[in-house]
Amino acid sequence: MRTGPRGGGRPSVTDGVRERIERVVGPGNARDDAGVLLTYARDATPLQRGDPELIVFPGTTEEVAAVLRIADEARVPVIPRGAGTNLSGGTVARSGGIVLVLTRMNRLLEVDADDLVAECHPGVRTIELADGAAAKGLLFPPDPGSYTTSTLGGNVAECSGGLRALKYGVMRDYVLGVEAVLPTGEVIRSGGRLVKDVAGYDLRRLLCGSEGTLAVITELTLRLVPAPASSGTGMAYFADLADAARAVSRVLSSGVLPVTLEFLDEVCIDAVEGYAQIGLDRGAGALLIFGQDGDEAAVARDLERIAHACQGEGASEVRIAQTADEARELLAARRAVLPSLSRLERLTILEDATVPRSRIAAMVEHIQAVARRHDLKIGTFGHAGDGNLHPTAVLDPDDTDAVRRAELAFAEIFAKAIELHGSITGEHGVGIVKLPFLEQQLGADHVALLRRIKAAFDPHGILNPGKLGS
Amino acid sequence: MRTGPRGGGRPSVTDGVRERIERVVGPGNARDDAGVLLTYARDATPLQRGDPELIVFPGTTEEVAAVLRIADEARVPVIPRGAGTNLSGGTVARSGGIVLVLTRMNRLLEVDADDLVAECHPGVRTIELADGAAAKGLLFPPDPGSYTTSTLGGNVAECSGGLRALKYGVMRDYVLGVEAVLPTGEVIRSGGRLVKDVAGYDLRRLLCGSEGTLAVITELTLRLVPAPASSGTGMAYFADLADAARAVSRVLSSGVLPVTLEFLDEVCIDAVEGYAQIGLDRGAGALLIFGQDGDEAAVARDLERIAHACQGEGASEVRIAQTADEARELLAARRAVLPSLSRLERLTILEDATVPRSRIAAMVEHIQAVARRHDLKIGTFGHAGDGNLHPTAVLDPDDTDAVRRAELAFAEIFAKAIELHGSITGEHGVGIVKLPFLEQQLGADHVALLRRIKAAFDPHGILNPGKLGS
Repeated sequence: MRTGPRGGGRPSVTDGVRERIERVVGPGNARDDAGVLLTYARDATPLQRGDPELIVFPGTTEEVAAVLRIADEARVPVIPRGAGTNLSGGTVARSGGIVLVLTRMNRLLEVDADDLVAECHPGVRTIELADGAAAKGLLFPPDPGSYTTSTLGGNVAECSGGLRALKYGVMRDYVLGVEAVLPTGEVIRSGGRLVKDVAGYDLRRLLCGSEGTLAVITELTLRLVPAPASSGTGMAYFADLADAARAVSRVLSSGVLPVTLEFLDEVCIDAVEGYAQIGLDRGAGALLIFGQDGDEAAVARDLERIAHACQGEGASEVRIAQTADEARELLAARRAVLPSLSRLERLTILEDATVPRSRIAAMVEHIQAVARRHDLKIGTFGHAGDGNLHPTAVLDPDDTDAVRRAELAFAEIFAKAIELHGSITGEHGVGIVKLPFLEQQLGADHVALLRRIKAAFDPHGILNPGKLGS
Repeated sequence: MRTGPRGGGRPSVTDGVRERIERVVGPGNARDDAGVLLTYARDATPLQRGDPELIVFPGTTEEVAAVLRIADEARVPVIPRGAGTNLSGGTVARSGGIVLVLTRMNRLLEVDADDLVAECHPGVRTIELADGAAAKGLLFPPDPGSYTTSTLGGNVAECSGGLRALKYGVMRDYVLGVEAVLPTGEVIRSGGRLVKDVAGYDLRRLLCGSEGTLAVITELTLRLVPAPASSGTGMAYFADLADAARAVSRVLSSGVLPVTLEFLDEVCIDAVEGYAQIGLDRGAGALLIFGQDGDEAAVARDLERIAHACQGEGASEVRIAQTADEARELLAARRAVLPSLSRLERLTILEDATVPRSRIAAMVEHIQAVARRHDLKIGTFGHAGDGNLHPTAVLDPDDTDAVRRAELAFAEIFAKAIELHGSITGEHGVGIVKLPFLEQQLGADHVALLRRIKAAFDPHGILNPGKLGS
């Protein structure tokens, strides 16, 4: 189990390994020129970089299997990735080795309105599936923030979330079938075009969120749902966050399950307005943005009920968008949070601590106190409906003391999430950034079990070493 | 891995083991009198019985952990179970040992309308949670056929389905958190009151459907949804099943996702009418029963659209229930299928082969041909919306040739399900009944991986040996 690359110092892709892999994928698809190595040294995570030795672009499942067999035999690390939009350093090659880029396997094979499924390669971008489904009157609900660039294989490997999780769930809820290659080269299939299938352990959902540490996903069968007939959006300002949190509870216990229920704290409101100048009330303590989809009459009725619940908790202003343009503008305010915060400083650290939704106010107050104590600018926004918060620190990367204070601050934020029976990561993954906090959340016995599961898939520890299960 | 009970012939609960366990749970909760042994020798699966040596009724997680540590040390098999309503022999003690009955751990700890979750012990009956949720205006969607007697721990261990899976999914989609005891005695927790939580491999969904072979579930956090405001039901007769299957496709591609979409073939229609005399048309080739829930106007509109789709595919009669009584009567017809078939002969074998929904007609025609060829009475009904069929053979258990022919027939039915990219089991589990067919569906490499995962949880193979992962 520990005889792999991590045991023996710096591994290396020997000439022999490189040549064998080149023969499998073709010379143009196994690259080690400086520019390509630099491109794939990082993913979207700030402050993290790896040191890959060879970047491989397989074109078929068989090529993936052949590359893995070669790497396993030579004990060379393999880090599978798609577009690399993850925010936890999950696809950074910390122990060298091969970065296996699946973006050439990018065919949307079928969108089937009878079976309500899509079949696709892992390198298909999320937006391509969303568009393909929409063209047939269907909806693919998962919509991670990076959905215009992220790939579906990456979305599954990370179990991505997004803005619609409260009503529609996350990526795991849409994975019906997976074809995957084990690190030792065997190709397995789990599930298919079936909502119900209990033959064997549920490997497709185990792979979902396994962050490229158990197997390489080479094909997906994903569930689609009929597209809702209409949708609507609204917003509510609150003097403080506790009122907004109570409004969230009131909405949900009123029998409405909105498709979106997002919030911005005062730091975020101020940043968005400073950047986008769309007329937000900079004096407000919190902003809720809510949306519903479905039958037109039901949408109208639900939006009214949400508005009523917000007013009942003292919202200073409540508005329901009357036109599609107005609705787009409200959602644009939410999507503008991250770019607005990012422009304040050169370094943005976006986290995803998650708590039961009844603890949102307690958590955000804690985050604000931590920010004050460490003299940091941290804005918090996120998915109020599912308790998935995005505390976001903006700072100068050259201010080493500020970087250190931010690390301390996030350690305190993660500890608080655990104390409130939440999670250190709701949708970004453990990667390398959250690995030091994992045992604090799960306990030593649980982490030991994860390692045994990892070894059941990957006896020589070649797949994404130093991450989950290591 | 193979040093456990299966390696060494008939295991036995020695006096020493029995005494140690008695000290843990109290003498009244460790029983080996003949009546109790007989009661727990079977579950709801026909033709299957085990040979347990000791029946243990733990009261707490700590007691479960202590019993497992004793059993693991002594290499004695432990078969966890709730009400034993599974239909695959999943809780039959084939290798002797201890049956661990979790029905004393039966507290519904909390139904929380703010967090939209319930917390409960594994021995809570499904109907108790459904009622507890309903009392707070919430819905717990999974509704396996046995929901009045089955327990939630068993539902999770089997990943139960039910009639509402098309719209609401199955048990897996409602498992947010699990506390479980490993066979070696460690207590782990995975997840909690969070829709989004990606810290670690998703063990709660891996345990869902693991059929008591990986760990013993001792506490559950389950997701609830707001109860729909209204519901409605309808039915449509078809001259033959192919028309009904086309109507199902037409419904789903029309943008409607019904909460129920059930079908009965002619054998089932005839049996129900012969038993219940509720005025079903015995001349019809197939009956679809459909239902929708949600906003009142949306329900009415969806039922109309379903009716229209059925007419478009040549339904000979379509009816939408105008009163609650009428709706109950229609659903009662569906629920009467199994008792109606069962009264025809003394032995009923109910299976759950599943196919992509576009293949339902092909599958049912195959089942009917197989039944004719083997001179068997097999009625097929089930969940047309999700392709989960229930071919049900009724026969005389003393007619050994008929029993043999039924075994051959089901082997052919499972092979066809696999050929049509379906599954040998949609919701009943693999147990011992389906284990001989598992490798045919998954392949040898996949089954070998399942065994390695089993060993990662259960190094001495004491938990439910001879089932999944063995």
